[in-house]
Amino acid sequence: MKMKSLGRHLIVEMYGCPHKLLTDLDLAKKVLRESVESCGATYMGEFNTIFDNGGFSYIILIAESHISIHTWPEYNYIALDIFTCGEKVDPWKAYEVITRYYQPSKINIVELKRGIVEEKEQG
Amino acid sequence: MKMKSLGRHLIVEMYGCPHKLLTDLDLAKKVLRESVESCGATYMGEFNTIFDNGGFSYIILIAESHISIHTWPEYNYIALDIFTCGEKVDPWKAYEVITRYYQPSKINIVELKRGIVEEKEQG
Repeated sequence: MKMKSLGRHLIVEMYGCPHKLLTDLDLAKKVLRESVESCGATYMGEFNTIFDNGGFSYIILIAESHISIHTWPEYNYIALDIFTCGEKVDPWKAYEVITRYYQPSKINIVELKRGIVEEKEQG
Repeated sequence: MKMKSLGRHLIVEMYGCPHKLLTDLDLAKKVLRESVESCGATYMGEFNTIFDNGGFSYIILIAESHISIHTWPEYNYIALDIFTCGEKVDPWKAYEVITRYYQPSKINIVELKRGIVEEKEQG
């Protein structure tokens, strides 16, 4: 029985980001949309919420799953998820774009394989 | 230095779900909205995409982060994420609701603490 994974999910903790970037939703839209293009994903739609302290949540749904950020300006912290499926999309390319803009002083990453299933025969 | 985590993220792999449930977006809306209520989260908005094979992506943005599902009917598999922040919301209550409806024959779960930061003094 040959197994494969349907998707890859990068769970990224970005610490020490400049405060002003974490209240800038327009920047996030630019950055995440660019990240979608860079990794070859297909944009399907998006949604955001802004909080009283200026922090925000922003999610882009892609045909290959989703990319989301949640910002905590008071802690200079961003929770980033890059979840992609299929072999044509490379989540690490999106990661490179996003971390380049947000300049975290410290990053923790977990890469999880999602959906470990039996490979189906072609035909 | 006293540390705390800002959020909890349940990464749930649901295998062996009945095929017909994985093409039923209306059911997913009912289930996830009920899960949001059950865990005491605040609903902010949602977005979905349906694919040619009947599978779909569905994300609810909550004030405390997000809950998302992506379904693969052909593999009877659902990728579920329940990401909540704050101490008032219990992601495991949402988990109970969702797994009860989808009847997976096998579940894998990873619980990650998100945003490990220094606790700020009150005042």
